Amino acid sequence: MPNRNILYATTLVDELARAGLRHVCLAPGSRNTPLVLAFARHPAIRVFSHLDERSAAFFALGLALATDTPAAVVCTSGSAAANFFPAIVEAHQAGVPLLALTADRPHELRDSGANQTIDQVKMFGSFARWSVDVALPEAMPPPVALRNLRTLAARAMAIAGGEPRGVVHLNLPFRPPLEPTPMPGDLTEPPAAAQPRDDGAPYTCFLRSAPPAPPEAVIEPIAAVLEQHERGLIVCGPRCPGGAFGALVSELSQRTGYPALVDGVSGVRFGYPGVIGGYETFLFGEHAFPPPEVVLRFGAVLTSKWLNQYLDTAASPVVIHVRASGVWADDSHRVSHFVVADEAAFIRALIPRLTERQSAWRQRFVEAEARVWAAVEAGIADEPYFDGGAVYDVIDLLPEGASLFVGNSLPVRHLDQFGKPGVRHICAFANRGASGIDGNISTALGIGAGRPDAPLAAIVGDITFYHDMNGLLAVRRCGVPATIVLLNNDGGGIFHRLPINRFEPEFTDYFVTPHGLDFAHAAKMYGLEYVPVKDRTAFRSAFRASIDARAATLIELRTDARTDLVRRNALIQAARATGA
Amino acid sequence: MPNRNILYATTLVDELARAGLRHVCLAPGSRNTPLVLAFARHPAIRVFSHLDERSAAFFALGLALATDTPAAVVCTSGSAAANFFPAIVEAHQAGVPLLALTADRPHELRDSGANQTIDQVKMFGSFARWSVDVALPEAMPPPVALRNLRTLAARAMAIAGGEPRGVVHLNLPFRPPLEPTPMPGDLTEPPAAAQPRDDGAPYTCFLRSAPPAPPEAVIEPIAAVLEQHERGLIVCGPRCPGGAFGALVSELSQRTGYPALVDGVSGVRFGYPGVIGGYETFLFGEHAFPPPEVVLRFGAVLTSKWLNQYLDTAASPVVIHVRASGVWADDSHRVSHFVVADEAAFIRALIPRLTERQSAWRQRFVEAEARVWAAVEAGIADEPYFDGGAVYDVIDLLPEGASLFVGNSLPVRHLDQFGKPGVRHICAFANRGASGIDGNISTALGIGAGRPDAPLAAIVGDITFYHDMNGLLAVRRCGVPATIVLLNNDGGGIFHRLPINRFEPEFTDYFVTPHGLDFAHAAKMYGLEYVPVKDRTAFRSAFRASIDARAATLIELRTDARTDLVRRNALIQAARATGA
Repeated sequence: MPNRNILYATTLVDELARAGLRHVCLAPGSRNTPLVLAFARHPAIRVFSHLDERSAAFFALGLALATDTPAAVVCTSGSAAANFFPAIVEAHQAGVPLLALTADRPHELRDSGANQTIDQVKMFGSFARWSVDVALPEAMPPPVALRNLRTLAARAMAIAGGEPRGVVHLNLPFRPPLEPTPMPGDLTEPPAAAQPRDDGAPYTCFLRSAPPAPPEAVIEPIAAVLEQHERGLIVCGPRCPGGAFGALVSELSQRTGYPALVDGVSGVRFGYPGVIGGYETFLFGEHAFPPPEVVLRFGAVLTSKWLNQYLDTAASPVVIHVRASGVWADDSHRVSHFVVADEAAFIRALIPRLTERQSAWRQRFVEAEARVWAAVEAGIADEPYFDGGAVYDVIDLLPEGASLFVGNSLPVRHLDQFGKPGVRHICAFANRGASGIDGNISTALGIGAGRPDAPLAAIVGDITFYHDMNGLLAVRRCGVPATIVLLNNDGGGIFHRLPINRFEPEFTDYFVTPHGLDFAHAAKMYGLEYVPVKDRTAFRSAFRASIDARAATLIELRTDARTDLVRRNALIQAARATGA
Repeated sequence: MPNRNILYATTLVDELARAGLRHVCLAPGSRNTPLVLAFARHPAIRVFSHLDERSAAFFALGLALATDTPAAVVCTSGSAAANFFPAIVEAHQAGVPLLALTADRPHELRDSGANQTIDQVKMFGSFARWSVDVALPEAMPPPVALRNLRTLAARAMAIAGGEPRGVVHLNLPFRPPLEPTPMPGDLTEPPAAAQPRDDGAPYTCFLRSAPPAPPEAVIEPIAAVLEQHERGLIVCGPRCPGGAFGALVSELSQRTGYPALVDGVSGVRFGYPGVIGGYETFLFGEHAFPPPEVVLRFGAVLTSKWLNQYLDTAASPVVIHVRASGVWADDSHRVSHFVVADEAAFIRALIPRLTERQSAWRQRFVEAEARVWAAVEAGIADEPYFDGGAVYDVIDLLPEGASLFVGNSLPVRHLDQFGKPGVRHICAFANRGASGIDGNISTALGIGAGRPDAPLAAIVGDITFYHDMNGLLAVRRCGVPATIVLLNNDGGGIFHRLPINRFEPEFTDYFVTPHGLDFAHAAKMYGLEYVPVKDRTAFRSAFRASIDARAATLIELRTDARTDLVRRNALIQAARATGA
């Protein structure tokens, strides 16, 4: 290798690949040249090239969400790194494995007023689980310094992909020459005492014992409580584990007679028999559901306002939250038992201790569920077509195994309320760590790149679409065909649900913030087919066509926020009128 | 006032206005409702409404750059605040007065997994000169708590606008009701012991003694050194003070016989007789200029590569840097005397102690300067028209007192090399704190809003234009007509200047990063007139027409980066051939 910078960068990248890194997002610059070349030339790592660091980091977040393995994002020095911060905040809050590699200036330029030089050491504060200011490459490093690069890579991947998952920030200074120009006196090959392991093996294998089943002392009393109480609920919030977890929830629900109320982006809503998804409608406002005695919680805080309120008001004496990550997720502070254990192992250990229970309590939720969907399906057929209806239809039309990303603000709430559970597995994602409307398009496209064989749909509102419009560049540049459903109510429609809607003119000027943007131009600029639709028939056919063809399409449904709200509320009343 | 949140927000905003705040940028959300209403209803503060927090913060940065007084930017809780980080980094590095107000959740929701809740306490780390987690509003606060809001506002403005200028972060938690709904039991009017001062006076006046003239002990030895050495240079980097400083530099140059080499964005390049701006050409590569014995520096690190190199190689025994902010700005570490004093006061104290000197040394620079501009003007007339030529023409065409923002990467370097000094005052700005290509459009439009009577031009490259395309929303939404010159060489043209240009395919894929975007769509989406130009005549007429009409225009000049570089280098050789 021609010089120290190339030796260090190649060593680090090689070891990241040995530790399992498969995806990297690059943003252009000069100071990160050694890293860019090392990644570009590594056969095992797929490179995605971006021009906006904010979008690049959210794209990497999407890759990590889709694959549940760390993805890396690389930038040059200066404010470029600060543009990673929004995605880093989301990754930390949602427990998504992300490696942020920021190139930096050498120490003599730091704090000296030098061009494009800022204090990057620990610049992401408590949002990085591990933050390292890596050594400046030396001409003749002792072997231990090169072994350190390898263990650093292994540890970074282990921490990012550990429990809880999160962000690792590696800050990497380089002094020119940054390009592969030979430097007399520089070490060009690692010495014997710093060689990589044979056969491409990781230098350090991080092995974690298989998640232990919770001990008897934990399981026994919980099983006993469940046995004593008929009125229990299983509640799955966003970001529940994948794998066998969904099926185990169904089984546990069957066994305990506890209805399983599962969030739209819990990973358990689509593809698992018997789960309940209509709660936002049948628990809306005043309702007749008695409070549960026992709540068994998994995942993060729920999207549904009315389910959260129902659980809070219920003040159940026993609220058990099982979370392998150990990260607290209860903002109403009702949890009585916090079990840090692998969720699937927990359920597996619990089920054999429970006797099957047929319960009127569960039947009541099942019947309410059925009535909700009957009313929803009837109501959506009415005119005018509204945003919630489009979300229902997306779920209705998506094929088995598809990827769906829903934007924050209204779309994620519409999925929660109008995404009917069914037999088809649909991998539904949203950024519910910090629930921001930033980076949503890039996250969706990163998910598409992480699950390349699955058709990708995304549903976003107009301000969310505008906020990350730069992210559309990745459709062509990174080869990610996506069917993007743009629900355009010209501004912050969600604010119509809030009491501020009574205070004009500020409400319209500063909360709804109508913008009047014509997004057809954005579709043309980024090479998406633009399909404006006005009614359900047009929407369903445009959506089906785009998904079937794996095309890159922007389907825009313009609605009026007030009408949408009226339609939604009318539909809820209709469901309640049938006894839901 | 209906409730505690409105009382606290109104008190804080009222006191910020009393302390001199005149501009605020708002991004929509719910948690910041009390702040939004307080700002929207305050008669003395002009409100700019944005939809992307990253652009909002850079727009506020532009306002502060233009007015040299603090501007505020306000957002809701969560990742929205993280989108402020790039502009906060730039404001800190460049010493620009910025108030970042982030609404937050109350303490019971923090670290609890609650929706849209992140750790915002000191989230901008060392980039904020002062960071306060403000108290959660109380129902019946003791008077001292309300007085604290007033002194907090006064201190925030004083620190942000102090020396050095910089960022103050106020983190403000609120618990619903967020809108002005009466809350029984809440204090609604400030008690007697917490009343504002009479007649709209600030609660606490921060008074700074007029910057003292440097003491005799400082001035005498420096005057003596200047008297002893004929071969001296006055060098003005970016962000020199405004006011009388420029004229004083001219006078000092006249008096000492030291040529004044002034950066394109120093504030001294345009409107001050006798300053030198052609150094990037006559100091390019090998040249015959002997090293200066004395260098008298003002402002930040220079944009010009070849002037930096000339000064570094010169290793002058006496390098005096005068900087009121006291912020170090010498990455070659050559400064022998660092004088923390007001720059204008320093020169005023120095001049009377110096005898006027006519010097062949200065004449040499004056002649080289003349030859450079003669060669530049001749060369630019040739075909093909190139990016540097367009920058020359912008300076040539801008009227007295106009505002000009130049984007980072090539445009700021072209201004430095091709922006001919002249008698017309042009306020030229660039983000040279961290020199990022992010937020450049928003900064330009913020400058336009801060100097509403001056025509505004901005020159940006295509990746810089793409990076902050969301910022174009402010042209219509904030009523800022701008003539935007887009130098489109389809990718990172600057990288052609770097040795990495020999390493294909990575050079094109990951450094030049061609994108092929058609920016006409962006102009249409944001309501700018789009004028593509191919030659000098078309450019000059389009530019003149837009500036004269104060229109909102996107003038695109497409060039080829390699040809631009060849044209630039040929022009340098032509100048050098005439003896420059």
